[in-house]
Amino acid sequence: MEASRRVQGMGEPALLKYYPLVDKVKELGKKVYYLNIGQPDIKTPEGFMRKVNAMKENVLAYAAPEGESSLRDEACKYYERYGLYYKPEDMLITNGGSEALLFTLLSVCNPGDEILTPEPLYSIYKEMASATSVKLVGIMTHTEDGFALPDRKTIEALVTDRTKAILITNPGNPTGKVFTKAEIETIRDVALAHDLFIMTDEVYREFVYDGLRYISPGHYPELSGHCIIVDSISKRYSACGARIGFILSKNKTLMHEIRKLCQMRLAVSSVDQAGAAELFKLGMDFFDEILAEYTHRREIVNDALMQMDGVVGKKPTGAFYYMVKLPVKDACDFIEWMITDFEYEGATVLLSPANDFYIHPEDGRDEVRLAYVIKESDLKQAMKVLAEGLKTYRKEHPEACK
Amino acid sequence: MEASRRVQGMGEPALLKYYPLVDKVKELGKKVYYLNIGQPDIKTPEGFMRKVNAMKENVLAYAAPEGESSLRDEACKYYERYGLYYKPEDMLITNGGSEALLFTLLSVCNPGDEILTPEPLYSIYKEMASATSVKLVGIMTHTEDGFALPDRKTIEALVTDRTKAILITNPGNPTGKVFTKAEIETIRDVALAHDLFIMTDEVYREFVYDGLRYISPGHYPELSGHCIIVDSISKRYSACGARIGFILSKNKTLMHEIRKLCQMRLAVSSVDQAGAAELFKLGMDFFDEILAEYTHRREIVNDALMQMDGVVGKKPTGAFYYMVKLPVKDACDFIEWMITDFEYEGATVLLSPANDFYIHPEDGRDEVRLAYVIKESDLKQAMKVLAEGLKTYRKEHPEACK
Repeated sequence: MEASRRVQGMGEPALLKYYPLVDKVKELGKKVYYLNIGQPDIKTPEGFMRKVNAMKENVLAYAAPEGESSLRDEACKYYERYGLYYKPEDMLITNGGSEALLFTLLSVCNPGDEILTPEPLYSIYKEMASATSVKLVGIMTHTEDGFALPDRKTIEALVTDRTKAILITNPGNPTGKVFTKAEIETIRDVALAHDLFIMTDEVYREFVYDGLRYISPGHYPELSGHCIIVDSISKRYSACGARIGFILSKNKTLMHEIRKLCQMRLAVSSVDQAGAAELFKLGMDFFDEILAEYTHRREIVNDALMQMDGVVGKKPTGAFYYMVKLPVKDACDFIEWMITDFEYEGATVLLSPANDFYIHPEDGRDEVRLAYVIKESDLKQAMKVLAEGLKTYRKEHPEACK
Repeated sequence: MEASRRVQGMGEPALLKYYPLVDKVKELGKKVYYLNIGQPDIKTPEGFMRKVNAMKENVLAYAAPEGESSLRDEACKYYERYGLYYKPEDMLITNGGSEALLFTLLSVCNPGDEILTPEPLYSIYKEMASATSVKLVGIMTHTEDGFALPDRKTIEALVTDRTKAILITNPGNPTGKVFTKAEIETIRDVALAHDLFIMTDEVYREFVYDGLRYISPGHYPELSGHCIIVDSISKRYSACGARIGFILSKNKTLMHEIRKLCQMRLAVSSVDQAGAAELFKLGMDFFDEILAEYTHRREIVNDALMQMDGVVGKKPTGAFYYMVKLPVKDACDFIEWMITDFEYEGATVLLSPANDFYIHPEDGRDEVRLAYVIKESDLKQAMKVLAEGLKTYRKEHPEACK
């Protein structure tokens, strides 16, 4: 009587092991700056709670399996502003972006099928792949050049007769990478040449900096049968606690199949759907202020990192993450040391070890991810603490440094 | 580029095909009594909306992957009243009972593993089994004797080296069957003898009639490593639109594995969890009135059915479903005829065809399921319409009758 191999094969978030340590030092009075999590600190727009606070439901009944049409109608208008012309019937509402991705994997892949995906990757993709018996094949990208995609030939060399799809996150978590038009077209060309689906996870669509244009495979009419957009309101509207995600595709045959999974799990929260519909009524100017704030924070992080000896990274162009190489041999050891053995002006920082973001955990051992989702004054102080921490670590543990 | 076989292998709710027909006749002015759905008409207790209406969240953040402790604490007190002594750490909150079952299947079975389950069964089990590449093996039970379980030997004959678990619904949907102590102990004995998990879906726990005692595998200490309770607030508190389910087990190794699936999908709706915690604060007297109402409705349905020529069934002891054999060759044909070709005093009824509730669709062709979730006056009229419908069908279509 054992648990299944597919679930035993799943990992746990690398950060879990640090939390007991963090709790211990916090009890002893040390302040901890959390640069590890992707939970935005931006206020959830009031429309959500205003709607929820005013709801009067006599019988809280099942919503439609494909999602409430009021929410799908509002979402369509939002997507149109990005040049993504999807009709309500091309859209399924899911229990968060996570369920959107899970249903997409189940629908596209048989057990043993393969999916190509740029590495480093969102760590949960690995767990989802294990749970659904799918094999992830990494397209390796690198910190030094801002995680640029390799050329078409390099990607095509990874295609086998089990390859069913290419999965991208755009903008990327953990990379902060925004794919260029040329890169999206490389993916397009590979998908068309080898008859692959493109799963494009676009939960950070709004977070694109430096005046870059956000480009989606959904913009290409020739990909209408290939492209599946996975989306979520969590990051966009700082509403992670409402479980509202989306699957968008014009491939009607596939959507018919995915709808069966929606019928299987009956419905998505009626209350969350009502609240979410209000969020989509916000104008695009809502994002201006937020984007300005994140742009500013990104500068703070970048300026600080670039002044640290031996730190290698390139200013990311999207999302709210920054992945860098540290001049240490093992980032996990350094992160642990920062928690337990170091403080500067009574504080320390918690970082994400990057090996969690690679398919093979021996990759990315000297890398970390920082999320800039804390307010400016804290962020500035956190970067100071990190700079001092690195200096002290090199002095006290030269054997652990490069 | 095809959808996966596991999703292509899933069926769609049999009822879907009737809805366009129903819409058409409703437009023409025919009244339709819905005896097909399990959406209770009982008012959702006010505590849920009161809590939700008063919520003030500045940032709607992710809830804990295993569920909010406030909800788990309240739920523990509820389970204790049923003699089910589970601690908060033996409990995971899920996106409805559906996710609870999905995660349980994924965690217990490798692709190709088998699960024994009494037939007729909740039709969604079939779809979940396909989605998770699990094979369901039916333990056949029959309308005539109220869906009594066969003896231990008959069940054991179905066990193979791929069998991982026995899945029961207690009280049963679509059967309304409440398992007796002897039946639960038969299941216990088989599980212990063959090292099987017992998955027990108890979403209708409150709906037990005739003073019968509700008995769960969770009551047996010797099953603490075997038993996994799947639960949901949907039917209990008439709160289907809130997606709150539960997995309870004292098997710590297995729960550790299932928790990874919870981490993978991040969280369950914060708002729904807050509302649900209020529901669990209701005293057990809340159910008295509801139980009295359903008991009364069950009598109305039973009395009416027993007076219809050729109808075979036994008064169910639980849930709010009644499955009967009709004196027709094909219940699907009869259901369709009732919608399109029949009316009595301007009305007709919609029934569920029972072949959806069997693993092999050729089984149960002359059976239907009635859900008594409409108010008394409507229910009485609906039963009159059904009686007249059967009479007319036998007269007009003797070739389609038995």
